[in-house]
Amino acid sequence: MLSRKQVKHIHSLRQKKFREIHRQFLAEGSKLVTEILESQYKVVTVYALADWLNRNENILHSKNIPFTEISKGEMDRITALSSPSPVLVIAEIPATPIIPATAIHDIILVLDDIKDPGNLGTIIRIADWFGIESIICSENTVDLYNPKVIQATMGSVARVSVAYLNLPEFLSSLDPVIKIYGTFPEGENIYSVKLDPKGIILIGSESSGISPEVVSKVTDKISIPSYATVTVRDHAESLNASIATAIVCSEFRRRKR
Amino acid sequence: MLSRKQVKHIHSLRQKKFREIHRQFLAEGSKLVTEILESQYKVVTVYALADWLNRNENILHSKNIPFTEISKGEMDRITALSSPSPVLVIAEIPATPIIPATAIHDIILVLDDIKDPGNLGTIIRIADWFGIESIICSENTVDLYNPKVIQATMGSVARVSVAYLNLPEFLSSLDPVIKIYGTFPEGENIYSVKLDPKGIILIGSESSGISPEVVSKVTDKISIPSYATVTVRDHAESLNASIATAIVCSEFRRRKR
Repeated sequence: MLSRKQVKHIHSLRQKKFREIHRQFLAEGSKLVTEILESQYKVVTVYALADWLNRNENILHSKNIPFTEISKGEMDRITALSSPSPVLVIAEIPATPIIPATAIHDIILVLDDIKDPGNLGTIIRIADWFGIESIICSENTVDLYNPKVIQATMGSVARVSVAYLNLPEFLSSLDPVIKIYGTFPEGENIYSVKLDPKGIILIGSESSGISPEVVSKVTDKISIPSYATVTVRDHAESLNASIATAIVCSEFRRRKR
Repeated sequence: MLSRKQVKHIHSLRQKKFREIHRQFLAEGSKLVTEILESQYKVVTVYALADWLNRNENILHSKNIPFTEISKGEMDRITALSSPSPVLVIAEIPATPIIPATAIHDIILVLDDIKDPGNLGTIIRIADWFGIESIICSENTVDLYNPKVIQATMGSVARVSVAYLNLPEFLSSLDPVIKIYGTFPEGENIYSVKLDPKGIILIGSESSGISPEVVSKVTDKISIPSYATVTVRDHAESLNASIATAIVCSEFRRRKR
């Protein structure tokens, strides 16, 4: 049974302001919730249909997580998913993660004002796939705990460390031997250029690319060649930010084997 | 000035049933509409704000395209975009495209029940970037003329040929020398396996991968290696369909240079 106050609290967590006040975020759906339950995240409470609770009582008991059984009608009042979900959880937002010291021996993804929640979630999934442990976002990048970002990560959020920093300051603080790669139409062909297996991969925003304050920090301009036979006016803009990230990460990892 | 009948007609085109009756589809936003106007598509009519019409009167006159000036308030009644768009067009759905004969000398992307409009649109953009001229979709793949697909292509829909076919029949009809590549967790590492520069790249659905009737047609199983340090139960599922498409196409094209 769901109280009016609980419904209101859940809806409030769709807004960044209230996520920051309560230091809590939402996650929905069987697969994502299972990943969250098995991760380091501290789950505050679980709202679920009877079926789901029956199947998952072991983990709830072993982790001592409070839960509330709700009806399908009640779930309809709190879910943001278009297809019915059997479970919604509230979890604690952890303290800002510390970039692991190992990360400097590997690739770090740095996102300059990614605005689309689906893109950020997908980029976190790509990082997880390719074993990239750290992502650093500019302060204007969409909030990690936006429910659409959390859903798009498909659980990878539990395995990749994401921090928000002032990018020009962060990039200036790096050891000058660290390469900072950015994609530009005039950059060198990523398939043939030398790539350092460790370094920063900078991804620009969907609408305006890498911002001027950050462009000056790039040490190596690279490009993904287009094989289009027809040259189009603005063809260079036409790979989505998460697609470009996938291709660049794939090429770095290919060299690593 | 917009009539009630026009508003109703525009809204009806958000449903596949009415798109099939009228053989028309919608496109919105400056960039996409410009691409559509410059393409082979026959534009039926344009609804736009005065500003946009002033900037684009040359192309409308030269192509003899009817247009209606509307107010911002009227645009709000017909747009499906969250940020304000200055222009919406209705265009004709062309007759089912014929796969160009050249395509058999190159890569063809074959999509097995891609359901998410954003994924289909993004895959069309990837094909455009990499100069892949043809995409063949299973009959249960999301409709190309779904407004969300059209928007996600960012104009690439004007440059890539997309056909809907019975996949098992189509794949059976191919010359047996044509390789049919599909991604599977147990497939050979795409970075090291031999890849024929022409062939079929088969992409499975978001939820269930390549369907059983189609799996049997695959001649070469390939995989995108994960570099994750933590092995997760269902890690193999965790690349989005459009991300996997991008990585596979990138690797085929890299070999081509």
